[in-house]
Amino acid sequence: MRMYDIILKKRGGQPLSPEEIAFFVDGYTKGDIPDYQAAALLMAIYFKGMKDWETAVLTDCMMRSGDTADLSEIPGVKVDKHSTGGVGDKTSLVIGPIVAACGVPVAKMSGRGLGHTGGTIDKLESIPGFRVELSRREFLDTVKRVGLSIIGQSENIAPADKKLYALRDVTATVDSLPLIASSVMSKKLASGADAILLDVKTGSGAFMKTQEDSIALAKAMVAIGQHNGKRMAALVTNMDLPLGYAIGNALEVKEAAETLRGHGPADLTALCLQLASEMLALAGKGDPESCMGLARQAVESGRAFETFRAMAAAQGGDVSVLDDLEKFAKAPCAVQVAAPQEGWICRMQTEQCGIASMLLGAGRKSKGGPIDYSAGIRLYKKTGDFVRAGEPIACLFTSRPGAVPEAKEALLAAICFSKEQPAPEKLVYARIAPEGVTRM
Amino acid sequence: MRMYDIILKKRGGQPLSPEEIAFFVDGYTKGDIPDYQAAALLMAIYFKGMKDWETAVLTDCMMRSGDTADLSEIPGVKVDKHSTGGVGDKTSLVIGPIVAACGVPVAKMSGRGLGHTGGTIDKLESIPGFRVELSRREFLDTVKRVGLSIIGQSENIAPADKKLYALRDVTATVDSLPLIASSVMSKKLASGADAILLDVKTGSGAFMKTQEDSIALAKAMVAIGQHNGKRMAALVTNMDLPLGYAIGNALEVKEAAETLRGHGPADLTALCLQLASEMLALAGKGDPESCMGLARQAVESGRAFETFRAMAAAQGGDVSVLDDLEKFAKAPCAVQVAAPQEGWICRMQTEQCGIASMLLGAGRKSKGGPIDYSAGIRLYKKTGDFVRAGEPIACLFTSRPGAVPEAKEALLAAICFSKEQPAPEKLVYARIAPEGVTRM
Repeated sequence: MRMYDIILKKRGGQPLSPEEIAFFVDGYTKGDIPDYQAAALLMAIYFKGMKDWETAVLTDCMMRSGDTADLSEIPGVKVDKHSTGGVGDKTSLVIGPIVAACGVPVAKMSGRGLGHTGGTIDKLESIPGFRVELSRREFLDTVKRVGLSIIGQSENIAPADKKLYALRDVTATVDSLPLIASSVMSKKLASGADAILLDVKTGSGAFMKTQEDSIALAKAMVAIGQHNGKRMAALVTNMDLPLGYAIGNALEVKEAAETLRGHGPADLTALCLQLASEMLALAGKGDPESCMGLARQAVESGRAFETFRAMAAAQGGDVSVLDDLEKFAKAPCAVQVAAPQEGWICRMQTEQCGIASMLLGAGRKSKGGPIDYSAGIRLYKKTGDFVRAGEPIACLFTSRPGAVPEAKEALLAAICFSKEQPAPEKLVYARIAPEGVTRM
Repeated sequence: MRMYDIILKKRGGQPLSPEEIAFFVDGYTKGDIPDYQAAALLMAIYFKGMKDWETAVLTDCMMRSGDTADLSEIPGVKVDKHSTGGVGDKTSLVIGPIVAACGVPVAKMSGRGLGHTGGTIDKLESIPGFRVELSRREFLDTVKRVGLSIIGQSENIAPADKKLYALRDVTATVDSLPLIASSVMSKKLASGADAILLDVKTGSGAFMKTQEDSIALAKAMVAIGQHNGKRMAALVTNMDLPLGYAIGNALEVKEAAETLRGHGPADLTALCLQLASEMLALAGKGDPESCMGLARQAVESGRAFETFRAMAAAQGGDVSVLDDLEKFAKAPCAVQVAAPQEGWICRMQTEQCGIASMLLGAGRKSKGGPIDYSAGIRLYKKTGDFVRAGEPIACLFTSRPGAVPEAKEALLAAICFSKEQPAPEKLVYARIAPEGVTRM
C-alpha cells in the first residue's frame, strides 16, 4: 500500500477502504508517513469529503491510537455528554450531578479551556483543593460511590488526532466536516461511555456559526457514534448569547451551584434540564417526558446538589465554598460597566464576550498558560433585556486592573442595542438522533 | 504575510496576489516554508486552479529562483523550441540546424531522457566526443560562429521548480494544468530566448493523452510566455505512434542526419519542416508559407546538414560518423521481430514502445543511470502499414541479450492489428497562438 495512491484516490473523490484509512492513521502517527503527504490528503478530504462509514473508520483508528477508558466494572449504562464549546457553558457541572442523582453513573473526562471558550476542568479547579487528576482506581471508585466523577483527559487520548489536528491547524484544513467530527468523536469514544449526548453549540460564540453547519456536524457525529456501536443523540443549541450570566471559572461554578439548588438563570436551568433528560433517555430511564420529570425532581429534592458536593469532597475539594458561595476567592478588582445608551440588547458578539473574559485573566492565551480562577464577567443584562443609559450591564472581575479598559471596550463592542424589542431567543434549534433531525 | 492565509485564500478559490506567490516560492525554496504547507497549497491549486496571470507570476518566480541565460550578445531574434516529450522525437536535432541555416540563431539548452522518453542531450552524446557541457563563452561563441549550439541545462535552472516538482511527485499533485505549465515554462524562460515554439505531444506516447488536454496545456503555456514578454506559438502534434522509425540515441541521430540530408521518413520530415517554419515565422522571417519555403531550401541545399555537422565539430564531436552513418557504434546484438499475424497495424501503445527501447538499454531507469547509446529499436512498420504473418516489423538493438525477450514482448503487446485499413494519422492536431486556437 502506498500513501501516494491513497492521496490520488481521495483526490478523485473515491472512498478510502478501512485498510487504507488504518494505513494512513497508523503510518502518520508512527512517523512513517511524512507531514507533506498527510497535508495533501487532508486538503483532498477538505474538497472531496468522506462518507459516513469512512469517517467512522477514521474516528475508530484515531481512537485506537491511544489510551481508551474501560468503564466495564461500573454497572449500568454509562452516559457521557460533549459540548462543542461556548461562552458561559457550565452545563457539565449541572447535568453530571442531575444525571448521577437519577441513578445513571457519569464517568466524565473533560478538557481545559483554550481561546474564548472555557473548560470544565479549569472551572472545577476553582474549588480549592479539587483534584482533576485521579488514578484510574480513584476515578472508578468515585463513580461507584458517588455516581459521578469528572477528571482531566489522559495526555495519551487519541494521539493520532493530536498530531493530525496540529497539522490541520497550519495547513488550513481545520474546517472540514468529517475531520472536525472524527476529531471530536475519537476523543469521546476513547472515554468509554455506552451512550453519548452531543451539545452542538451554534452562533456567534461557537465554532459553528450557522444552524445548518451545526446540524450537519451533529449528524456526522451521531453517525460516527452509531457506526461504533454507541447510543447517540445531539441537540443543536443557541450560542448566540452567553449561557447564564457568569463567564469565568469560579463565577461559573457559583452559577452552576445556584442552578443545582434551583435558583439558576432561566436559560441555563432549562437547557440543563433538557440535556439531562436526553442523557437519562439514552440511559434507558424512560421517555423524554418522564426523564424530564426525573431531572426536575433531582434538582428540587436537593439530590443533584448533594451529588455535586459529594464529588467535590471525594476529589479533595473544599466544600465549604459550595455551602457558602461567598467564600469563593474574590477578584481584587471589580469594575461596573454601564450601558452607553438606552435600548434593547438585540445581539451579542458572544465570542467577543469570551475574549473580554480571557483578557481579564479567566482564559489562556496559549496552551499551558496561567489562569486567574476569580477573573471573569458577571452580566446583569443580555440579549432580550431593556437597559437605560448609564445602567450597569455587567461587572468585570480581575487581578489585573490594567486589563480592564481593553476588556471593557471588547465587551461593549460586542453588544448591539436597538429601539425594537428583539424576538425571544430559542434555547434549542434541533434534535438529531439516528432516526433523523427534528427542528424546534 | 502568512503561508496559512495563502493556503486558505487559494482553498476558497481566490487568486493569489503576485506578492503572495513570490512569498511562497521564495520561502519554499529557502526552506522557510515547510513541505506540508506547500503540499496543502499544491492540492488546493489542483482543485481550484490558477488564473493565467497567476500562473505567469508563479512561472516568473520559479525562473528567477535560479540561473537565467543572457543571450543578448547574440544579434537577432533568438528562437527556442520545447517538446513535451515523446518516443522517437528527434525533431530538435533536425529543426535546430534548419532554423540556424536560415539565419536565425539557435542557442538551445536541452535535457536528458527519463522514463520512456528520450533526451536530446543523450542523443547528441552518441556522437563520439560530442561535449554537451560548454562554458558560457564557448556556448555563445559557437552560436555566433555556427548559428547553433545545443548544450545540457545548467544544474541551477529553476531550483524552485525542482523542489516543487519533487514534492508534487509524492503528493499526487503532478497533473494540475497550471503547475505543469509553469514547471515547463520556468525552465524555458530561463533559457533566454526571445521567442518560443512549443511542441505539445499528445497521445499514447505522450504525457498528455487527449487532444483537449494538450490544447489546454498549450494555451496555458502560450499565455505564460506572452505574459512574460515572449513571442509564442504551439503545435499540438501526434504522439499516438513513434515519430519516424528509430527509437534510441544513436539510431535517432542517424535518422535525424538522414532527414537533414533530405532522405528522412515522411512523417518526421514533414513535422520538422512545419516546426522549423513556425520558428522562422516567430523570428520574423516572413509568413508561414515563405518560411516553409526557406526551411525546405535549407534542407535541399545541404546547408541544414552542414550546420549540424559544424555544430558537432565545434562541440568536439567526431563528424566522420555523420559523414558515414555506418561508422556509428553498432549494438553487439540485433534481433528481428516478426509480425505474429497478418493485418493492418491500427494502433501502437507508444509509451510501451519507448519502454521496450528503455529495456534494451536506450533509456534510464533512474536519474543519473547509465545509457547504451547503440541500443534501441528500428521499426520497419508502424501504424497504417499492412504486414504479413512472419514478416519482420522491427529490429531490436542491445548489448544485453538477456533483455531481448522482455523488450520483444513489450513491443508486440504495444501493437494492435486489424483487418481494416485504419484512417491515416494526422501529424498536427492544432496550432495555438496568442490570437487563438486553429484546429487542423
